[in-house]
Amino acid sequence: MNTPQGFSPLYTDMYQLTMGQAYFLNRRHDMKACFDYFFRKMPFEGGYVVFAGLGNLLKMIEELQFDASDIDYLHEKGFHPDYLDYLKGFRFNGNITGMVEGEIVFSVEPMLRVEGGLLEVQLVETLLLNMLNFQSLIATKANRIRHSAGNRTLSDFGLRRAQGMGGIQASRAAIIGGFDTTSNVFAARQNDIPPAGTMAHSFIESYDDELKAFRAYAGIFPDNCVLLVDTYSTLRSGLPNAIKVGKELVQQGKKLTGIRLDSGDLAYLSKRAREMLDQEGMDYVKIIVSNQLDEHVVKSLLEQKAPVDIFGVGTSMVIGRPDGAIDGVYKLSSSDGKPRLKISENLQKTTLPGRKKVLRYFDDRGAFYADCIALVDESDPQKMTHPYQKEKSLSLEGRKFEDLFIRHMAEGRNTSPAENPFELREKVRHRLEQLPEEHKRFDFPHIYRVGISDKLLQLRDTMVQKLQDYIK
Amino acid sequence: MNTPQGFSPLYTDMYQLTMGQAYFLNRRHDMKACFDYFFRKMPFEGGYVVFAGLGNLLKMIEELQFDASDIDYLHEKGFHPDYLDYLKGFRFNGNITGMVEGEIVFSVEPMLRVEGGLLEVQLVETLLLNMLNFQSLIATKANRIRHSAGNRTLSDFGLRRAQGMGGIQASRAAIIGGFDTTSNVFAARQNDIPPAGTMAHSFIESYDDELKAFRAYAGIFPDNCVLLVDTYSTLRSGLPNAIKVGKELVQQGKKLTGIRLDSGDLAYLSKRAREMLDQEGMDYVKIIVSNQLDEHVVKSLLEQKAPVDIFGVGTSMVIGRPDGAIDGVYKLSSSDGKPRLKISENLQKTTLPGRKKVLRYFDDRGAFYADCIALVDESDPQKMTHPYQKEKSLSLEGRKFEDLFIRHMAEGRNTSPAENPFELREKVRHRLEQLPEEHKRFDFPHIYRVGISDKLLQLRDTMVQKLQDYIK
Repeated sequence: MNTPQGFSPLYTDMYQLTMGQAYFLNRRHDMKACFDYFFRKMPFEGGYVVFAGLGNLLKMIEELQFDASDIDYLHEKGFHPDYLDYLKGFRFNGNITGMVEGEIVFSVEPMLRVEGGLLEVQLVETLLLNMLNFQSLIATKANRIRHSAGNRTLSDFGLRRAQGMGGIQASRAAIIGGFDTTSNVFAARQNDIPPAGTMAHSFIESYDDELKAFRAYAGIFPDNCVLLVDTYSTLRSGLPNAIKVGKELVQQGKKLTGIRLDSGDLAYLSKRAREMLDQEGMDYVKIIVSNQLDEHVVKSLLEQKAPVDIFGVGTSMVIGRPDGAIDGVYKLSSSDGKPRLKISENLQKTTLPGRKKVLRYFDDRGAFYADCIALVDESDPQKMTHPYQKEKSLSLEGRKFEDLFIRHMAEGRNTSPAENPFELREKVRHRLEQLPEEHKRFDFPHIYRVGISDKLLQLRDTMVQKLQDYIK
Repeated sequence: MNTPQGFSPLYTDMYQLTMGQAYFLNRRHDMKACFDYFFRKMPFEGGYVVFAGLGNLLKMIEELQFDASDIDYLHEKGFHPDYLDYLKGFRFNGNITGMVEGEIVFSVEPMLRVEGGLLEVQLVETLLLNMLNFQSLIATKANRIRHSAGNRTLSDFGLRRAQGMGGIQASRAAIIGGFDTTSNVFAARQNDIPPAGTMAHSFIESYDDELKAFRAYAGIFPDNCVLLVDTYSTLRSGLPNAIKVGKELVQQGKKLTGIRLDSGDLAYLSKRAREMLDQEGMDYVKIIVSNQLDEHVVKSLLEQKAPVDIFGVGTSMVIGRPDGAIDGVYKLSSSDGKPRLKISENLQKTTLPGRKKVLRYFDDRGAFYADCIALVDESDPQKMTHPYQKEKSLSLEGRKFEDLFIRHMAEGRNTSPAENPFELREKVRHRLEQLPEEHKRFDFPHIYRVGISDKLLQLRDTMVQKLQDYIK
């Protein structure tokens, strides 16, 4: 299949390796450097992002090493022998500090600070972006669907429409965002997620008769029998046959688990199905729906009081439709002991210099109030300013706050506890209780306040001024 | 990292395994069955799709087997011991027939016919959909960008925004669609694609001075030196410094390879850059542009006569924006020697029954004229009818045609030649010359004619009638 065997550091952009060689041969590879990870645009026009993928990433970075075949390949591509000798023994020995996986995050603010020798911190860029951008996208999408679904069960049905092996990471992220089960057996095993699924239309079609097909399945799985009822006609054939089989199961002391609707008007059909089942005393039979669901369809179904117990969500969740990507970037903020920045004619694309952290301030009821990006040595800024509109500032005086930055990796050793996706899901759920409702709205959510401290503002402005003089 | 070690058949939907158990314990697993792979909706509102992913898929299916840990996991999940004994020895022994990878395909028509025992053909469904849907999406997107770019070089820069490990498959599919190089070193090695990339902004920022940074890089890579010129100011700093370094390279008997623009108005900046370089006798220096490119931006740049030599395309290509997925499905068309279909109130969702093939008819100039879906035993249908609008039919009399269905796998053995992505790219290029221009247009492309033979029409209508009587 051509899957990575173990994990190869060649899973990166070529320019990381060429820059690495230039750093190494110019004896700059050990120069201290610091990069920030952040994104600029909120996906889904939403009000928050669920930060995910960190657990996978830390493990991958800790294990990162070039094997003989990697080195041979780079040799073929003309890399310098001294550099390749260095790469043979390469391990990431840097520090990673930042927000915990499952944190609720906002645009512009750094989520991680990666520090170490220039070469090593550069080399992990692509991997970091690839893992964190995608899992954060999917965890956020899944969380929006959870927001619509209330306490109903959500199952990931997306593998067939996933972007190749990205489906493996998507299923993990879906749980973090709030899903309960997955159809993806590989991801289920890897992450200890309950696998879910029973039958497709083909099962029924392979029999000459729908009732025979249902009986055959119920005979094998009397304790977990979900019948797909829309192969021929949901109301005229599927449901009457499912009810027959349900009664036969009762005679064996068993209970039909559920029926699944996969086409037609799910609001109408789920209501009719509930009525027909309840009339037969089968109020215990669950109604599962699938087919092109997303947060908006789920919301609409429940507003229409569709009696759905389980939603199976595929394409839209597993590829994070419509955005498909978070524009996360990894930018140098300090090297050789000096703050660094990239300027742009657009102030929004000018990066924030220096080694930084994020402090979260709370209102009197304990809800998130504002996030302040500050320099690492600041204790408690009393005021913050909008990163791009200087006329907007906010007093932070006397407010309670948390420093969101903790150490995840120390000199290449992963110091973060390994958490399974359900523990992370719980963290997300708890954390979202502290986020005011207006930020969770789908349409024009209230924009959460993220600002920069006076010291950071001053540092940036001084550096921008100096650079503008330089290029004059 | 949690990557698949080798390849596990657990990379599937749970319901394939539960249905498999029901088939096995009901002694139906060896019953002959046939599934079709096709999609319903054209991605990108385009006029064609590039069929890709088959080479990977055939290899994966040929190697598919459950290892001890897979069986242990399924045992834990409560699967039946007799079924697990069977799975221990499971290999795919079926036949796969259909279009070649790199074929130009259209909605509704089957691309593959998968035949074998009911259990084995069911078990490969998710893997098949996952691989083919995604690679076909990306090959199609890449081909649209190629259509805009003419003969300029296209490089895949997408890994950082790819959907997790889907980036590996995306880079292969990008080449099939028409790209030339990739930044993804892992995919480059795996598929023998030239890896591309030189430096990021961080390289320049890590020096106190842009000129010093350029000189340091040129010193290490004098033969492949592409300088990124927009870190501070493209016209006032980046280009003048690049020209200085270019002149220094000339003194060493070397030539500056290129400059890269990654922000600002790429049309304006590339023209100014070309002028500045040419004035210094550096007409050999290539101009590379990147930053949020897609087929529309590339088209617009070239319409504005932007003198671009190489386009680096990231996010939009690697995730197949805006669709992100092809809605490919895998539907039972025959089992136990009988044609099967799923009906729906919507005729477009009623499947086409029976074992089928696709014949492509040509016009007098050798261009694609129409595709006819026929039953396998038909030789040369003289007429075809629109699949959903019976009043529309088309004579095929006397036209030349090709049978697009060839055998790819015979009794589990891969009989297709292994082709690298560049061979497939050549096949796509050649094949697209036969597709009339109107189908390649981005806006409201002319819809290619796909129809069904009279025999197939009759079979479907008879079966639909019978089923409607059944559910009355």
